This record gives sequence, structure tokens and C-alpha cells, in this order.
Amino acid sequence: MIVDNALYHDGVRVALDGDDPSLGHARVPCDPGDFQWVGIHDPTDDELALIAKMFDLHPLAVEDAGDSHQRPKVERYGDTLFLVLKTLWYVDDQDAVETGEINLFIGRDFVVTVRHGQGVNLADSRRDLEQRAKVLEHGPMAVMYAICDRVVDEYERVGAALEEDVDEVEESVFSPARTNDSVRIYTLKREIAEVRRAVLPLREPMRRFAAGQHESIDDETATYFRDVADHLQRVSEVIDTLDNLLSTAFDAHLARISVQQNEDMRKISAGAALVVVPTLIAGVYGMNFDHMPELHWTYGYAFAIALMVGASAVLLWFFKKSGWL
Amino acid sequence: MIVDNALYHDGVRVALDGDDPSLGHARVPCDPGDFQWVGIHDPTDDELALIAKMFDLHPLAVEDAGDSHQRPKVERYGDTLFLVLKTLWYVDDQDAVETGEINLFIGRDFVVTVRHGQGVNLADSRRDLEQRAKVLEHGPMAVMYAICDRVVDEYERVGAALEEDVDEVEESVFSPARTNDSVRIYTLKREIAEVRRAVLPLREPMRRFAAGQHESIDDETATYFRDVADHLQRVSEVIDTLDNLLSTAFDAHLARISVQQNEDMRKISAGAALVVVPTLIAGVYGMNFDHMPELHWTYGYAFAIALMVGASAVLLWFFKKSGWL
Amino acid sequence: MIVDNALYHDGVRVALDGDDPSLGHARVPCDPGDFQWVGIHDPTDDELALIAKMFDLHPLAVEDAGDSHQRPKVERYGDTLFLVLKTLWYVDDQDAVETGEINLFIGRDFVVTVRHGQGVNLADSRRDLEQRAKVLEHGPMAVMYAICDRVVDEYERVGAALEEDVDEVEESVFSPARTNDSVRIYTLKREIAEVRRAVLPLREPMRRFAAGQHESIDDETATYFRDVADHLQRVSEVIDTLDNLLSTAFDAHLARISVQQNEDMRKISAGAALVVVPTLIAGVYGMNFDHMPELHWTYGYAFAIALMVGASAVLLWFFKKSGWL
Amino acid sequence: MIVDNALYHDGVRVALDGDDPSLGHARVPCDPGDFQWVGIHDPTDDELALIAKMFDLHPLAVEDAGDSHQRPKVERYGDTLFLVLKTLWYVDDQDAVETGEINLFIGRDFVVTVRHGQGVNLADSRRDLEQRAKVLEHGPMAVMYAICDRVVDEYERVGAALEEDVDEVEESVFSPARTNDSVRIYTLKREIAEVRRAVLPLREPMRRFAAGQHESIDDETATYFRDVADHLQRVSEVIDTLDNLLSTAFDAHLARISVQQNEDMRKISAGAALVVVPTLIAGVYGMNFDHMPELHWTYGYAFAIALMVGASAVLLWFFKKSGWL
Amino acid sequence: MIVDNALYHDGVRVALDGDDPSLGHARVPCDPGDFQWVGIHDPTDDELALIAKMFDLHPLAVEDAGDSHQRPKVERYGDTLFLVLKTLWYVDDQDAVETGEINLFIGRDFVVTVRHGQGVNLADSRRDLEQRAKVLEHGPMAVMYAICDRVVDEYERVGAALEEDVDEVEESVFSPARTNDSVRIYTLKREIAEVRRAVLPLREPMRRFAAGQHESIDDETATYFRDVADHLQRVSEVIDTLDNLLSTAFDAHLARISVQQNEDMRKISAGAALVVVPTLIAGVYGMNFDHMPELHWTYGYAFAIALMVGASAVLLWFFKKSGWL
Repeated sequence: MIVDNALYHDGVRVALDGDDPSLGHARVPCDPGDFQWVGIHDPTDDELALIAKMFDLHPLAVEDAGDSHQRPKVERYGDTLFLVLKTLWYVDDQDAVETGEINLFIGRDFVVTVRHGQGVNLADSRRDLEQRAKVLEHGPMAVMYAICDRVVDEYERVGAALEEDVDEVEESVFSPARTNDSVRIYTLKREIAEVRRAVLPLREPMRRFAAGQHESIDDETATYFRDVADHLQRVSEVIDTLDNLLSTAFDAHLARISVQQNEDMRKISAGAALVVVPTLIAGVYGMNFDHMPELHWTYGYAFAIALMVGASAVLLWFFKKSGWL
Repeated sequence: MIVDNALYHDGVRVALDGDDPSLGHARVPCDPGDFQWVGIHDPTDDELALIAKMFDLHPLAVEDAGDSHQRPKVERYGDTLFLVLKTLWYVDDQDAVETGEINLFIGRDFVVTVRHGQGVNLADSRRDLEQRAKVLEHGPMAVMYAICDRVVDEYERVGAALEEDVDEVEESVFSPARTNDSVRIYTLKREIAEVRRAVLPLREPMRRFAAGQHESIDDETATYFRDVADHLQRVSEVIDTLDNLLSTAFDAHLARISVQQNEDMRKISAGAALVVVPTLIAGVYGMNFDHMPELHWTYGYAFAIALMVGASAVLLWFFKKSGWL
Repeated sequence: MIVDNALYHDGVRVALDGDDPSLGHARVPCDPGDFQWVGIHDPTDDELALIAKMFDLHPLAVEDAGDSHQRPKVERYGDTLFLVLKTLWYVDDQDAVETGEINLFIGRDFVVTVRHGQGVNLADSRRDLEQRAKVLEHGPMAVMYAICDRVVDEYERVGAALEEDVDEVEESVFSPARTNDSVRIYTLKREIAEVRRAVLPLREPMRRFAAGQHESIDDETATYFRDVADHLQRVSEVIDTLDNLLSTAFDAHLARISVQQNEDMRKISAGAALVVVPTLIAGVYGMNFDHMPELHWTYGYAFAIALMVGASAVLLWFFKKSGWL
Repeated sequence: MIVDNALYHDGVRVALDGDDPSLGHARVPCDPGDFQWVGIHDPTDDELALIAKMFDLHPLAVEDAGDSHQRPKVERYGDTLFLVLKTLWYVDDQDAVETGEINLFIGRDFVVTVRHGQGVNLADSRRDLEQRAKVLEHGPMAVMYAICDRVVDEYERVGAALEEDVDEVEESVFSPARTNDSVRIYTLKREIAEVRRAVLPLREPMRRFAAGQHESIDDETATYFRDVADHLQRVSEVIDTLDNLLSTAFDAHLARISVQQNEDMRKISAGAALVVVPTLIAGVYGMNFDHMPELHWTYGYAFAIALMVGASAVLLWFFKKSGWL
Repeated sequence: MIVDNALYHDGVRVALDGDDPSLGHARVPCDPGDFQWVGIHDPTDDELALIAKMFDLHPLAVEDAGDSHQRPKVERYGDTLFLVLKTLWYVDDQDAVETGEINLFIGRDFVVTVRHGQGVNLADSRRDLEQRAKVLEHGPMAVMYAICDRVVDEYERVGAALEEDVDEVEESVFSPARTNDSVRIYTLKREIAEVRRAVLPLREPMRRFAAGQHESIDDETATYFRDVADHLQRVSEVIDTLDNLLSTAFDAHLARISVQQNEDMRKISAGAALVVVPTLIAGVYGMNFDHMPELHWTYGYAFAIALMVGASAVLLWFFKKSGWL
């Protein structure tokens, strides 16, 4: 679905003929410095074909743009840059990270954004940018920066949410309660792997943009991309640290299970002793010797019971003292 | 066995004399731009010698082509490129990855494909290519691309199948059932190692092709190889992620075993208590004291049995409550 | 809050008009070689804006300086260097590493230091430097060196404190006492990760300063930065070693738990044997056979008791001897 | 001991004066293109000194050649190349990898081979080469290639033998039998470390030879060294894979131990239940109540025994059903 | 303490005025090619200051030389090289690696050696060198080589001693005895980390010396440094291998603990069965049924005892057969 389609002149949105968000008309002729921005969401093959024809896009890039399971990358086809960005967002209800995809075609005088799935809302980014004519004046590269910045900001939010999750896991692992943390840790590791797959492949190209190793990026814009690269670096460090902490937390979880088993075993043994020792006493007074004076005492029975209770009490005290119960 | 042998002129198959798939005749003289494509399956030494003589192939490459246990590589002997590709495919019945091998000799005006074992069917690739004269016009490099693309597509399918297997293992590890996941995880790790051995050595040469660092690859073809390199990269990331997840799953499996042992131990202990406590009571009333009033009660016996049952019932309730049974 | 503001001429502090630490006046005109040093602590947005205007700082850097959760970095905006340093210090009471942040803007003729949180006291550094006019003569770079040196010295102190903590953990792990070292090890690993995040990103830029790959660093100053780089390297090696040792200590802790469980199990079993064998003897003399001569002995009962005690004593001796009790 | 000593002219062995394998005569004057090949086995210091004087070898290299515990390396002393190769071979009887050493001095017109210990038999290599005058015509480099090829072939054989050993270990780990695989895995890991130490240091120099980065290696010979480098690469990949598989197998072994312990514990508990429940019944009928009707039944005793057997039988059935026995 | 002070002319020691090992006189004027060698042990600040003034050493280097906790490094201050070497030696009595430090200042015409702590005795090195005038003729670089060679030889000896320790640990881990190997393994890992910290930072500078990337090192000396670099490489490989083997040995140790626990558990259970089954029999004949024929047999008691002993014997035989006892 074509979501929006506009021409920008000196950073200001110019109404297109009929201002119809569909692409029913041919490509808009641009003055130098102007550019057209077309936004598509969950594109049909027809829409992609139309766009490809309008802006003369490379078939391989168009094919990739139609598929929502690409890995993040930045590629150059002739004059056109093609970016695949993974969008990530954190769903609080499910404590889960979800992924979408944004594809960008950045030409000299046009921008095509293709969004798959939910996640970062490009309409908001566009509205924000339209408020800042000074930024938009830098042309398509400014749009690319704005979107990358938006996407990476979202990564940082996901990173922060995962940090909280890891804190929770940590608390749970070290709490005295009997918790089944291994599923939770595993799920978090899976999500971290997901984030890593989104973040890592972007670091290199963003660093290249930041270093100005791209003809259409001027020094001013490069500085902005340095900011993006820096944030990406921060996210990837957070992610690596969390991954390591989770591994350590898992080991601690294993240790805790062992310790608990040990404690249970000691508790069980102590409990057993409380029963077995009186049983021995009962056994003794169940013997059939002719001469067992206690048996004939008036309070023999009471004595035996007292002996049993006493022995158990002593054991109980002893185990309490030595921490087994 | 020589499977097919044809001359291509302007991307179109030209019937050879007698159109006989055997190589009974000398090498076909080619117009500039034409090339000959010979396909061999499980070659005999004689066939290899014949081919080597026809196209003046390097003896070391021919020796490698005759051996089906090569590692993937791309080598250059004079004007001729020699590729060893591992073919992978997933056998659903056995949940196993199987491997074959394809060797390619790519010359200025010829292509020789040598297939070992099953796997990717080159006859299909050839038929597909023959439909697309425009691609075939690019000559031997187009054939090389088509085959690499085919092989790598198969890798992606294997990667996807392994992802499903890992999902199954995951489910099994975290299911309450008592499963023996370690064999399964081990087997999967083995298969992942197999895939890695096929994929990794290809990444570097494909990247070189993609970067156009090869004289006989023009810009257009390089773009296509970039696609192949990108897919290889994706497969290798999937494989790495799966390997890590399997390691974590294994740890979770170990944790689960420990937890189960702990639970079993507590269940056993609770069960034991249900028997041992009544035994103590029985022991008490088996004592031979002269004065044990209960022994002379009319309902003493019933009282004792009730005591036993009662004690067990209390214990049962207690253990149920505290989650030990 | 603006903490201090002074002009340095030939390495000597020159009282500013009114010597008022607030920035109520415009930027001080400098002779060549002179520089102004403004120190800010926990800046408000207004203060940052004022400073940014005075020294014409880049908005992205100013934005970073206002945020106390940056990663360490060295960036260049036109003629101005922008440094983010993490300050670390060890709080003995809590055995914890705390972090603050210092941002530096180093221009040709000015230094702006922005401190967030506690930690390294820059006022002290300034006083020290003011004693050493010869060093201050080198200008802003000397200030940058002095602060980096100060911060990295603090890292070394933290490293040493962590080494002591690891020694304590080690002792605890290998002590015969039943200790819960996993929490402690986990916390230490977290702190080490914190230190690593402060140290690692600085290594590369410091090495670059040390190699003189920066126009405003003369050879003499480069030598000093080599010292800083060397200390950073030492800290990061200490940190890596500690991390590895902690992992090994954790494994040893796990082993210890297993060994303890084993010892407990043997102790429990030996203890059980001391009760179960007399119970068997009691059971035997509780049998109701008509002809059991011991039952009619005068000292039969004493004999039985002696047998029980004797059996237990033998077992006790045996278990002591074989190390089970 | 000097094993062989010959002059090669145009790739053909020329009998030396007296054809005496000892070095009793001075160095043989060579026509251009000719070279002398001296083979030594377990050299004495005198022999080394003699050789060193004859061919003007560097003292450091000669010292290394006299010591059989060098690491593999390729070094250049003036015009002379000095190679240290580790020879590996697999002793089937002991399932062990043994190591020897070959040192090569390769000059413009001479080859000195110094062999320590058993392993690769250079006499065979020499005989093989002497059959192939065409190869020998390439001079000392051809000899170097031939020996490297021989040695690396042996590595591949060792790699294959280790693969079989790992397969055996794998089978043993996953077999239901109670096996002590940890010693076996440890030994294999040790042997793999041995192989790695022989293989890894050679990879880089062989790659350099293969890339022709050595003046005395012509293109044709470089191609052959590419073959050697490729085989080395294959061995080192096999070795890495095996090492990883062994680690995983070890983990699986640990898991198996835990599972077995769990199964044993359940078996033991079930077995105990079969005895403890009848004991309780016996205890009940051992009570001394006045009114216990069963005691006076004619078949009371039989009833009690039947109850015991019945209870055990029910338990047995139950445990069989639930897989505990 | 200044230990020795001499002038070397053409590789021969020249008595200084008064030949007094103290530095009471000014610096000795040197002919070209001559050099002065001052040796200091555990220097006082005054001695360092004196030396620094005499040879015009850089204050940062002098500061480092006064501190015995530097990391190994090679630095250049103007014309002077400054080396920090860690000396290692193995104390047999304690099975421990101890560390000292040597600092070298290598100028065009002087050498200053500063030794901290025990370890490598430089007086011996000096005596050895003085015997070899030919080596000493190469000037300060020869001294540097001789000391590095000496220090690295000591590393190799430490490496060999650690190899023996690992062999002992290995034997202990796989011996049937119940050993507490985790402390030992941990200590060894700590020592290996120590060695690594001494060895690793030297590899790169020694390789640079060996490659002749240092103006004052001629080709002949470079060859000697190649020898040093090679030995360093060997030590670091040995160390890495040992570290890996220790990790594997630790895992094997863990496995052994588990196996032992399992065996103990089975032994305990078997032992318990030997007591519990007779107890059941005793319980049976302790029942009070009116009609229990065995009770009235003349040899009933003997029969019961025989039954008990028989049952135990059968169990004993059974457990022996199945390896539980």
C-alpha cells in the first residue's frame, strides 16, 4: 500500500498534482535540489514493479525489498543506495522483542521507503522531518539519516528493556525461591541473538558513512552518521555484556540447583533420623528377652515414649544447630 | 558418466554433431562469445583424462575433481577457474544433512561441471538457464553464477530445516517430559559443523567475485555474485546463531536433568516418609511393656491402624502442600 | 553548576575580571598561547547552552555532554576535540565499583570540563596543575593529559581493589566452610564488565594520541600519552585475567559443591548404618521363635544391647577409618 | 648417521666418487642446475658440524637442527631456507599419535635433510622422486615440495585416524553401557593439540610459498605448494571440528552421567520400596494388641505373607509401568 | 645498589679508574664503538636519579624503572630504548612460579640494567658475555640480545616445569584415588596467567627486532632476535596448550566427581539392602500370629538366621556381580 508520496523543494513539502497518495501519475520532474519521497507499507508486487520502473531500481534490490526476511545491509546499485534495516521493538505484555523491516532506496533526487510489518512508524518520522526544513534541505541523505537515527533509537530502547529483563532474571536466580530460570534465560538469549543480528551488520556501513567514505555524504551529514554509529556501538556493547551476564547467571542458576539439592538431601536425612532413631528404640523394647527390667516398670511405657521423644528432640536440636534443618 | 554436452551461441543451445552426449568427438571450435558446456556425473578416470586433454586442464585440478572429499575452494590455474562446491540437502526422513560435491572448470570458452553424489541437479539448472538466453549470453561466468546461486539456495533451505530442528529440540528440552535430548543436540551440532565446512570457505572468494576483483567478471555479473555472497553470509549467521542456541539449550538440558533429579529425590523421600512413620507406630505397639493401656483397649488395634493412616494422610497433605509430591 | 573559570597565560593562572566563577561575562580574549579553562559540574541545560555559544561547540557534542550515560569516546568536531571519560571509583563499604562521567571539550585556546556525578575531583587536578606551570605551558593538551592520567590512575586503583576482591573470593571458594560464592562471583563479574566498558573504548584513541597521530599533540606530549595508554593496557590485562580467574573459581566452586554433596551423602549413609544395624539386631531378638536360647539367658538383654552398641562401634570405627565420617 | 648422499644432474642421480654414503670427501662441485642432496638421520654433533662447514649453514639453524624439540617454522638465513617440520604418524596398537621431526636446509644447489626419530621415511621419498626426473629438474625446491607433500599427506592420514577415534568415542558416549569416556576424550584432546601444534605454524609459510612470495619458487612450483597449503588447511579444519565435537561429546558424557545417576536413584528407591512396605506390614502384625482378629485366623500368617507379596507385586508393577525399574 | 660498572672497548672489558663498582665519578668518555654497562639491583631513588642524569634518560622511563610492577614493554625515548622484562623462575619446593623484573636502558654507547627482586642473575650473563668478545663487539644491542635470550630461556624452563605439573595433575585427575584437584588446577591456571602476562607483550616487539624494523639492529643481530622471538612463540604455544588441557582436565575432574558420587550411591544402596532385607525377615518372624509353624520348629531360630544370612549372601553375590559393590 502506498502510504504517502510528496515532493520536497528547499526542505518544504510541495503538494503534488491532486495530492493523491497513490502513484497514478508518472514521476514528478524535479528541480535540482528537490526530491520526491514515496512511502510504501507491505508492498504488493505491482506496487514494487511500478516504483522500480519510476525510479529505475535494480531488479535484485527490488526483489530483496519484496521479501521481509533479509539481513540488514547497505548496498550500492549504480547511483542508488539500497538499505535494509531491521526494526526492533519491545512488547511489554509478552516481554518479547519483535522485528520488522524497512527498505530504503536513496537516489539523487528521490527516496523510497518500504516498510514490512509493524514497528517504527515512518509517518511520524516524516512529520517530524517536515517540521525541520533546515534538515530536509540536505536532501535524501537527511531522510536516510533521520530514519536510521529513529531505528537505532528504537534499538537502544530495546537494549534498555532487555537490561531490565536481565536484572529481573538475576534477582530471580539469586532469590531463595525455587525458580525455573533456565527457560527465561534461554528466551532472553534468543532475543539477544535477534538484536545482534539486526545491529551487527549495520555497524560497518554506518562507520563508513560516519567516516565520509561515500561521495553523496557531506561533512555535516557525516557528523550525524557518527552519532548513529556511536549509538549502534553502544547497543552492541550492551548486548554483548548482557549475553555474558546471562551466561554467568545461568552458571549461577546451575550452582543454585546443586546447592538446593544438597540442602534438600540434608533436610531429608535429618527428617529421616527423627523417625529412624525412635524406631530403633521401639525395636529394642519389642525384643522378647525374659529379663528386661524396663518392661515391668509401671511407667516403662511412658519411659520408652519419653526416650523416643527425647532422642528425636536431641536430634532436632542438633540438626537445627548444624543447619541441616 | 558424461551427462550432457552442448555448444551455446549467443545464449542459445546449438546441437552438436550427432548431438550425442558422449564426448566421442574432439573439442568443438568456438566463435568468439560461444562456449561449450560439458556435464559429468561421478566421473571415471578415463572421462576426466579425456576432458583434461580437451580443455587443457591442470593435472592438480583434475586430480582434485576426481576426489569427492575436497574442501570448498576457488582456485585459478592460468586462464581457468576451478571451483569446488559442497552441495548440501536435507533428508526429511532422517532429519539429516547429506553432502555431495560439484567441481567446476570455468574457461574463457568452456564450462565443465563434475558432480559427485546426489544433491543439486545440474540438469535442471541447465534447463532453466537455457530458457534465459539473455543470461547465458554473459558466457561461462553466467553459468558459474547460476550454479553457485542454486547451491547456495540449497544451503538456505538446509539452514531453514536446521532452524526447525533446533525449534523442536528447544521444545523438547523445555517440555515437562523426560527426554534424552543430548544425542539429538549432538547430532545437530555435527550437522551444523558440516554446513559450516561447506559455507565458510566460499565466503571469501564469493566476496571477491562480488567486489569485481576478477578480470573476467563484469560489473553486471559482480552484482549477481554480491547476491550470492549476501546469501552465504546469511546462512553462516543463521548457522552461528543456531550453534550458540544449541549450546545454551544443552546447558538448559543439563539444568533440567538436575532439577528433575532434585524433584525425584524429594518425591522419593516423601514417599518413604509415608511408610516409615507408620512403621514407627507399629514398632511402638510391638513393644512388650507390661503396662501399655492401648494394647488392652477393645478398639486398640483399630486405633493404631487409624493412627498410622492418619499420620500418613497428614504427611501426604503436608508434602502435597509443599510441592514435594 | 559552574565550578571554576580561569585564564592561563604562560602556564600561570590569571585572575579574570571580578574572578567570579560564574560565566556572567563574554568569552575572554586570549593572547596566542593562552587558554581559558571552564569547569562545570552536573550542568543545567542553560549552562551548556551558554558554554556552547561561548566556544562555538557542535550541538551533537553538547547534547552528549548533557547526558551522563555516554560510552567513552574521543571525537573531533572541526578544531575541537570532544572526550567522554568514565570515572570509576571503588567504594570500600559496599565492595562496589561506582561510575561517573567527565566530558572534555579541548579547543585551541580553551578547555571545558563537564563532570557528572561523583568520582575524580577535577578541582584537585586543577590545583595540582597550577603548581606545575611548566606543564600548563603546553596548553589545553596538557590539561587533557592531566585529566586522562588522573582518571586512568583511578582505574588502576579500582583494578587493584578488584584483585583483592578476587583474592577474597578465591580464599572463600577453597575454604572448607560452606560458602555461597556464586552471588559474589556474579557481582564481581558485573563490576568487571563495568570497568571493561570504561577502559576498552579509550585504548584505541589513547594509542593514537601516543603515536602522535593528532596534529595538536607534540612529541613531548605524545610521550606522556604513551604512559596513559600503557596504564590503560595494564588495567585491561588485569581485568581480563581477573575475569578468567573468576570463571575458573566459579568452576571450582561448582566442583566444591559436588564434592560436598558427595561427602554429605557418605556421612549421612554412615550415620544411617549406625542406626539400621542395631535395628536389625533388635528385630532378630523380637522374633517369636519358641527356641531362642539367648532370650532366656540372665544377661540376654545386656548381651543384645552390647551387641548393638558393639556393632555400631565397629561400624563407627570402620567409617572413621575409611573417611566417611 | 649419514644415510644417503648424491648429486643430481638434470633430475638424474649421478654416482658420487666411490658412491659412499659417508661424507668423507669435500663438497661436490656442481654445474649450474645440479644439486647435491645429503640425508642424515639422528645426527651427531660432528656430522652437523661437517655439514654446516660444507654448505656454510648458519650456526643458529644448525643448533636448531640438532635439537628435536623445535616448533615447525620456515626461516631464511641468507640464501638458505631452513624448515622445521613435525612428522606425525598414528600408531594403531596404542591409538596414539607419535611425532618426529624433519629439518631441511634448502640452498641454491643443495638440500640437506635431517630426520629425528621415526615417522615419514625420506628414503622412500627420495626413491619416488628419482623415478620422476621431470620433477627433480626443478631442483631443490622440488625436493622441498616433495617432502612437504609427504609430511602433510601423513597429517591427513592422522586426521582421518583421529576422526575414526572420535566416532568411536561418540558411539561409546551414546551407548547405554557405563563407560569411562573422560580419559579417552582427554587423551584425544591432547593428541589433537599435538597435531595442531604441528600443523598451524606451517600454514602461513606454505600459503606464502603458494602465493609465490619467494624468489626461488617459480609459478609452476607455487601451484604445487598451493596444493600443500590446501591440504594443511583441510587438516586444520578437520582438527578444529573434531576438537569442538569432542567438547560437545564431553558435555553429553556429563549429561549421561547425571541421567544415569538419576536412573540409578530411581531404581534404588523402587527397590527399597519393595522391602520397606512388607516390613511395615510385618510391623503391624507384630503389634501386641489384645484384639487383633487376623492374628487368630487359621490362615492369618499366610494372609500376612500374601499381603506382603501382594503389596510388593503391586509396587513392582507400578514401578515397571512408570519406568522406575 | 650499583652492582657493576664497566667500559667495553672492542668487546673487551676495560678497567675503569679505580675500578670501583660505585658511580662516584662522572660518565666515562667513550671512543666510537665503545660502550659503558652499568648494572643496578633494587635501585634507590638516588641511584636512579644519578643514572638518569649521567645518561640523560627520560623521566617517565626512570619512573617506570623505579617501580617493580610494570608490564613488559619496549619503548623508545629519543635515541634510547627502554625495555621492561618480567623474569620468571620456578621454585621447586613450592611448585610455584615467581616473578622479578629487569629494566634495560639501551643507548648508542651505554647499557643500564636495573634488576628488581631475584631471578635471572645478570652478573652471570655479563661474565658469559665477557668471554665472547666477538659478540660484545656488536655493542649495546648484543647485551640486549644476551639478556633477552637469558630471560626467555628461563621462560622455557618455567614452561617445561609447568608441563610437568600439568602431567602430575592429569595423573591425579585420572587416578582412582579421591583427590582434590580443583585447588591445584586453579593454582596452575593462575601461574599460567602470570607467565602469559610476562610473555605476550614481548612477542610483538621481539618480532619487530627480528624483522630488523629498528635502525640500530643490523641483519646479523636481527637473526639472533629471530631466535628469541621463536622461543617466545614456543613458550606462548606451550602455555596456551597447557591452559586448554587444564580446562579439559578440570571438566574430567568434574565428571570424575559425578561418577564417584554415583558409585558411592550404588555402594551405599547395596550396603543398605544387605541390612534391610534381613530386617524384613526378622519383622516377619516377629509377627504374633497364632499359627506360624516355623516359630515352633526346633531349629526355627537357626532357620531364620540362616534365611537372613542367606538372603544377604545372595544379595552380596548379586551386587558384586553387577558391580555395585
